Amino acid sequence: MKFFFLIFLSLFVCSGLSAQQFDLVPLGVLGGEHEDNLSSYLLSVHGDDRYLCLDAGTINAGLRKAIMTKSLKGGQEDLLKNNIKGYFISHGHLDHLAGLVMNSPADAPKNIYAIAPVIEIFKSHYFISSTWANFADSGEQPAINKYHYVPLTPKTPVPVENTPFRLTAYELSHVNPYLSSAALVSAGENYILYLGDTGADRIERSEKLGELWHAVAPLIRSGNLKTIMIEVSFPNKQPEKLLFGHLTPALLNEELAKLAAALGTSSLKGVTVVVTHRKPPIQNVKLISEELLNKNPLQVNYVFPEQGRKIVLP
Amino acid sequence: MKFFFLIFLSLFVCSGLSAQQFDLVPLGVLGGEHEDNLSSYLLSVHGDDRYLCLDAGTINAGLRKAIMTKSLKGGQEDLLKNNIKGYFISHGHLDHLAGLVMNSPADAPKNIYAIAPVIEIFKSHYFISSTWANFADSGEQPAINKYHYVPLTPKTPVPVENTPFRLTAYELSHVNPYLSSAALVSAGENYILYLGDTGADRIERSEKLGELWHAVAPLIRSGNLKTIMIEVSFPNKQPEKLLFGHLTPALLNEELAKLAAALGTSSLKGVTVVVTHRKPPIQNVKLISEELLNKNPLQVNYVFPEQGRKIVLP
Repeated sequence: MKFFFLIFLSLFVCSGLSAQQFDLVPLGVLGGEHEDNLSSYLLSVHGDDRYLCLDAGTINAGLRKAIMTKSLKGGQEDLLKNNIKGYFISHGHLDHLAGLVMNSPADAPKNIYAIAPVIEIFKSHYFISSTWANFADSGEQPAINKYHYVPLTPKTPVPVENTPFRLTAYELSHVNPYLSSAALVSAGENYILYLGDTGADRIERSEKLGELWHAVAPLIRSGNLKTIMIEVSFPNKQPEKLLFGHLTPALLNEELAKLAAALGTSSLKGVTVVVTHRKPPIQNVKLISEELLNKNPLQVNYVFPEQGRKIVLP
Repeated sequence: MKFFFLIFLSLFVCSGLSAQQFDLVPLGVLGGEHEDNLSSYLLSVHGDDRYLCLDAGTINAGLRKAIMTKSLKGGQEDLLKNNIKGYFISHGHLDHLAGLVMNSPADAPKNIYAIAPVIEIFKSHYFISSTWANFADSGEQPAINKYHYVPLTPKTPVPVENTPFRLTAYELSHVNPYLSSAALVSAGENYILYLGDTGADRIERSEKLGELWHAVAPLIRSGNLKTIMIEVSFPNKQPEKLLFGHLTPALLNEELAKLAAALGTSSLKGVTVVVTHRKPPIQNVKLISEELLNKNPLQVNYVFPEQGRKIVLP
């Protein structure tokens, strides 16, 4: 733990060099099994209390933890209803949206931002009476009309209602041809990139990540995009045939090298990489972090988020 | 808390009069929102470590809690793989099976026992690549072949593989015509009755509960069935038009009166009622317990299960 603390400390020292732009409150950080700690991240402009929720695997347990650690102020009911202004759901797998479905009866009306195939999955499998009830305003009838789907056209920015954010979706490949997606979120001149589950282009026989790196390279070059949130689900020992559309530390390095190439540099110094979706068992979760820190040829700042612990990002 | 402790104490004193037959380890006890504490109960013969899992809203977080409280021995991985011998899933709503789906990659091969419409929901909505992957041995292809569905014909007992249990399903009405179900579980001469979500017959315009009470009345009369696990989702203030197929304390009393009538008695003294599925907010969870204890005309022994705390049942 001391080791990780030093990593965090050094991050904050580094980030002290530039202004603090975003607050990130992880409501859940793991890639499976722990129903109380699955992918979900509250993002706000630094110091603001209007949050966009990036994926929604775990909501309630994460809010309770974040209140306990004083990363969030207020009660969980109010935070859910009033401070989460909308959800970006990267793809249709249960561990990225179970918290949203489960908390829908206690939630207030707001938007769900997602690419079309993800909205289709909500309509066909989650917000139906067989598995729950339709809390959205389209799909199976009767509809409870609480959530409104905002379909995201890839590469086309949309405003995130009741926040200062704009959001642009990019498609990702998660066991080709299954589509996951990334959200490039901006507030003014400042950007942050969140990726849902994704495999490496080489394994997926896809060009989705390559295209994304080319799209964001100019923003990194100009210093407007400093943080990338990306999954590393398995340690390097995971056979390439058993990746199920996920990344390892080695494959992340492979992809980051492509990003550096798109930038025409050999280093990504100054870029913060928030590592999401490490899969239990807990030995693997630790191993993934060690493998990333021990072999960091692009010299990125790694951040390993903890549930309920606010991270201030440059 | 002192009050509830006394209730527990009196239960154990009473149960001291008869032998201890079942161990019940609640992995999750609430009826919503808290992703880490949703309906799921491990049942074994007293002192045995082979469990049937009654619903599976939360698994992993419940196992961790039960290990912490020493209600279960061993590690969570082993307990999941080796000690949970099968699942009974009462109906298709997410809060009763999310833990099973989420933990499927870490689980070992075993059976899922459910009535046909519930199996159909698994095949159409949960174990598919759009929302997860098919961990069962039938349904969407490719199938990972880990779980085997055992379809339950109502009122027809089946053995629960690798346990001393037999299980008989009964249909329940959960917003008519949506079907939920109950499991009457037996080991030798001893029975326990677990009900999934259910509305009252009067509200549901159904006779499912009435039929169930008539079916189990002889077992209660003979002293073979001493424990009923049943939901009370809302306090009495919940309007009858907004019950969504659930019970209140008053409606439970209405149904228990029918059970007493089927027995030809005016009291259910000696019957233990384990109250499941109380819905947050937490004030309601407490209110439901108070309302049940304050108006208990049938004189049942109420037990309010806590996550991870083993209950020994007569």
